[in-house]
Amino acid sequence: MTQAAAWLGVAPDHLLGLAALPYASYSAAHHAEEFRVGVAIGDSVLDLTTACDRLLPGRAHLFSSGTLDQFLAAGDGAWAQVRAEVTRWLSADEYRPAIEDLIQPAAAVQLGMPFVVADYVDFYASEHHVANVGRIFRPDGEPLTPNWKHLPIGYHGRAGTVVLSGTEIRRPCGQSRPPGADLPVFGAARQLDFEAELGFVVGAHSHLGEPVPVERFAEHVFGVCLVNDWSARDIQRWESAPLGPFVGKSFATTMSPWILPLAALEHARIRPPSREAKQVGYLVEMADWGLDIDFEVRLNGHVIAQPPYATMYWSPAQMLAHMTGTGAALRSGDLFASGTVSGPAREQSGCLIELAWNGKEPVLLPDGSTRSWLHDGDEVTISATAPGPDGVRIGLGAAIGCILPAVPTPPEARY
Amino acid sequence: MTQAAAWLGVAPDHLLGLAALPYASYSAAHHAEEFRVGVAIGDSVLDLTTACDRLLPGRAHLFSSGTLDQFLAAGDGAWAQVRAEVTRWLSADEYRPAIEDLIQPAAAVQLGMPFVVADYVDFYASEHHVANVGRIFRPDGEPLTPNWKHLPIGYHGRAGTVVLSGTEIRRPCGQSRPPGADLPVFGAARQLDFEAELGFVVGAHSHLGEPVPVERFAEHVFGVCLVNDWSARDIQRWESAPLGPFVGKSFATTMSPWILPLAALEHARIRPPSREAKQVGYLVEMADWGLDIDFEVRLNGHVIAQPPYATMYWSPAQMLAHMTGTGAALRSGDLFASGTVSGPAREQSGCLIELAWNGKEPVLLPDGSTRSWLHDGDEVTISATAPGPDGVRIGLGAAIGCILPAVPTPPEARY
Repeated sequence: MTQAAAWLGVAPDHLLGLAALPYASYSAAHHAEEFRVGVAIGDSVLDLTTACDRLLPGRAHLFSSGTLDQFLAAGDGAWAQVRAEVTRWLSADEYRPAIEDLIQPAAAVQLGMPFVVADYVDFYASEHHVANVGRIFRPDGEPLTPNWKHLPIGYHGRAGTVVLSGTEIRRPCGQSRPPGADLPVFGAARQLDFEAELGFVVGAHSHLGEPVPVERFAEHVFGVCLVNDWSARDIQRWESAPLGPFVGKSFATTMSPWILPLAALEHARIRPPSREAKQVGYLVEMADWGLDIDFEVRLNGHVIAQPPYATMYWSPAQMLAHMTGTGAALRSGDLFASGTVSGPAREQSGCLIELAWNGKEPVLLPDGSTRSWLHDGDEVTISATAPGPDGVRIGLGAAIGCILPAVPTPPEARY
Repeated sequence: MTQAAAWLGVAPDHLLGLAALPYASYSAAHHAEEFRVGVAIGDSVLDLTTACDRLLPGRAHLFSSGTLDQFLAAGDGAWAQVRAEVTRWLSADEYRPAIEDLIQPAAAVQLGMPFVVADYVDFYASEHHVANVGRIFRPDGEPLTPNWKHLPIGYHGRAGTVVLSGTEIRRPCGQSRPPGADLPVFGAARQLDFEAELGFVVGAHSHLGEPVPVERFAEHVFGVCLVNDWSARDIQRWESAPLGPFVGKSFATTMSPWILPLAALEHARIRPPSREAKQVGYLVEMADWGLDIDFEVRLNGHVIAQPPYATMYWSPAQMLAHMTGTGAALRSGDLFASGTVSGPAREQSGCLIELAWNGKEPVLLPDGSTRSWLHDGDEVTISATAPGPDGVRIGLGAAIGCILPAVPTPPEARY
């Protein structure tokens, strides 16, 4: 069953065919406040909340809130059952009478936050990204810190400022210290950047004091989304010693609205790159959780980067095992992101600081303008596709954000 | 009205007299699953959920869930009104018939998490602590990083592992690299430490993109609690470059169950220490939010430290202004902590790494044993008091935690 029923009119090569079936929270335009859970099929959305009432009443309570919160918490048995049922409804003609009135054009609905983000963690799992950043900031030192090949470096971000794709991003104001200066200055961030990342959505919780081993990854992680970890590089650089990034990143993180279940990525699973350093027991994987996902980053509609997720050094199963390794519990709704996805070539870099090499080699746009950093009004679109069954490709949707100008800084707020 | 009504039998010098009135979530022993909001008065607890039903029905919905979540979100008007009403009920004899049956011994109730922690941020606001840590780790360098006197350094921690006082803390296992070694080792943390901190509980939310200025601190922050930011120093040291602490701290953070409203700290407000560096506009305070709170840390019942919060360099109003300065929104239930509270003298240090100077000068206990780091079975109790009106002192309760042994590491989990 890799083809949607003919009456649905989904092209065989559609990125949102029967092999994808991502979930979102949406409201129909005429009921702006009433959210329900939807499944994407082609250019349409199936009202899963109502469909379950009719066809799978035993699971209907999982979708009655209109968000994915209850479904995420229900665990992998419920995830598999619902996906199998939805696949059946959308592939067999006999379900047409039961669901036809529940399908509407995706363009006509309003998407909402799919779930409440519990904790948000950001990893740093691309060797190419980390080495490039190391070369830029420490040209005479080792590109990687000594720990980097021994554990997946990560840090906690701000869950409360994870926003939905389409939310406009206000350029932040803050402190930074210009190169060579003794004192910091205050004002609008001059080095605003994006970071293209893959996000992993935790469904099933775990208990305090009990690490989640690599082999239980798919029992706890429900699916993936796209993440843009907006970063004010000038603010970040000044604040980060010794406790890491804080307000240079916490002002906003964009996530895509459609959550693609792990089950849709079976054909994208590959072996991660070979690891040089011997890995400690809790990070040793028997199953492959490298992912062959092709990213694309557009700036004002123009493709500026095509980062390959396949090159990521640390797998998400290792990230999860490390994050819980000292006993930290998982909650349903936790989100962890991969860190910037960058491949070996310059045009495979997932952020501007690499693409424009810290401003030394600005990116040229078709309109003749160049970018070392984001300008006010710039729109960044992160999208991605992955291999599915029978040669089809699966779409992961898009994380989109547009930069608003900073609020002007009154004179008394400066130094 | 600084004296509770005589029928309540509260000693005039009780730390939980009428000037304190902290809030908690509790269940009566005979209704173990039914939580309600309580107010401490002397050695007793008033059932505020039921008292509001009877005496303040317009606000009763704020307490019907049995936690502080709704009350926190209701804002400073509700906070002031409820505190004034409770003060009246507990000071005038005429309310005895209405509330006498709602008061029971504090020793007989079970306390719960007072609210759902939204985001958790940990600051680093004690100059003495930061300078000591700098001297220990970089004996030949400057004790403070260049940014430290220009902004309140902080980082996000894990909200999902903030646990209630009394929760046992499992010694974590993880990676660390012994001094001089090339490769890391895996095993139970050998350098387990506590950090005595003050926590600030956010009530009223703010909007994305809108900084909260220092002068609006008391509109957004409801009150304070005590925090123990457990830290595995050996794990933390190996993981922290370049993105800061992660799993060396995320395994557990203990908070005290009683939330003392800011209004109870009016008499504790003082001017913070004089600041050497010129402070940028958004950090300049007109009102004083230094706090004259005396901490006490006991290890297995023995006092090992008495850190003075009055010596903290950055005020909580500055922490809030900085945390939101780039536009990060606040949610009701956000918790931010001060970082380790340490004064200038050795015995005023709020963590073992300072008290035992990184293991070089172990702390001697009355039983003749010494501590460089925490042992299995050790119990750490953090308590604090502040000046109230008319010479009384106010208690902040206690954050207590006992160390459980690590889960043994199987051989295959080692390198």
